[in-house]
Amino acid sequence: MRDIFHEELESITADHLKMTALVRDAISTATSALLTSDLALAEKVIADDLAIDLIQQALDERTVNIMARQQPVASDLRRLVSSLRISADLERMGDLAHHVAKLARLRYPNKAVPAELVEVISEMGAAALRILEKMAVVIEFRDTTRALEVEIDDDEMDKLQRRLLSTILGPEWDQPVECAVDMAFASRYYERFSDHAVSIARRVYYTETGEYSPRS
Amino acid sequence: MRDIFHEELESITADHLKMTALVRDAISTATSALLTSDLALAEKVIADDLAIDLIQQALDERTVNIMARQQPVASDLRRLVSSLRISADLERMGDLAHHVAKLARLRYPNKAVPAELVEVISEMGAAALRILEKMAVVIEFRDTTRALEVEIDDDEMDKLQRRLLSTILGPEWDQPVECAVDMAFASRYYERFSDHAVSIARRVYYTETGEYSPRS
Repeated sequence: MRDIFHEELESITADHLKMTALVRDAISTATSALLTSDLALAEKVIADDLAIDLIQQALDERTVNIMARQQPVASDLRRLVSSLRISADLERMGDLAHHVAKLARLRYPNKAVPAELVEVISEMGAAALRILEKMAVVIEFRDTTRALEVEIDDDEMDKLQRRLLSTILGPEWDQPVECAVDMAFASRYYERFSDHAVSIARRVYYTETGEYSPRS
Repeated sequence: MRDIFHEELESITADHLKMTALVRDAISTATSALLTSDLALAEKVIADDLAIDLIQQALDERTVNIMARQQPVASDLRRLVSSLRISADLERMGDLAHHVAKLARLRYPNKAVPAELVEVISEMGAAALRILEKMAVVIEFRDTTRALEVEIDDDEMDKLQRRLLSTILGPEWDQPVECAVDMAFASRYYERFSDHAVSIARRVYYTETGEYSPRS
């Protein structure tokens, strides 16, 4: 019984990693679509989001079934409840990549990102990938040291958002309002994306140590 | 055993209603703070958000304990899992009210809302309250008809957001970029607030009928 249960936990982790890989593709492709005004890339992210949603739905069904069959208590039950939350965060990260792609599509064939924001948007995309890499290690190896590092990367993302907003609101900004609003929303999507990764890292930290992470 | 279990379910519902009432105060006060540049009101919403977070934390602890003790299966288990998600949505709605209040504080003593957007922001605030009223009935009476109505109110909120954005992006807009960005974010907070209410309504619909709501 215990062995089957642990195999089931591993299969949940495998699905979380599969979702993480899809979310990684999604945010990476969405960032390229936004930076290069590539409609085909944007459409790909928008279409692929359904795959992430479907994995989540099936995984959550299975997780609740495991609860019902195995009747876990204490830490095993907490681990399953935390799994449901992790898959909800991953699904939402997919949605946010989808939102970035939709901005690219909305402005096509024009460029959504003006020259003065190309660098900061590229850096936000790169920060998202760094965060996902650490988050994958946290999910796979229940690595609490890496879990704390995700919070530091999130600080970096917040800084990038502030940099983007101060460019938009600065004296040299000469783009139309539409562009300012698009870019403000884009920065919000990356920032929220990163918040969900922090939320996952904190849940793993809590499940593993029984304590809230020092920064939560 | 069953009786204690059903009492416990009722106490979860009572906490959801308590959270709903606090979220209602928060969004209502935050809207006033934003419209009237009232710093004291904004600070109140920001400080009160902690109370919502604490109820959620305690409630989630208790819900997991009920799962461990009662070992529910089938629909009872699904109901508890759904409760955890409802409290997460309510907590997030509190955060979004908090974000609206922070916009008011950020621009104080200036008005955050320019004259041409006062009406649409008031309407978004009113729409949020209408949605919360229906959502409270959905939570308290597991009312699936009202659950479907929440989705219609959400369409109204989406329309209001489009109206706000088209004013900002329209030819008559003559406010600074900062104001456009603030108002775009405000509209996003109301729109997301409404989305979380839809998510709660859909969960209740699903738990009660065993089917996804026709629009999900």
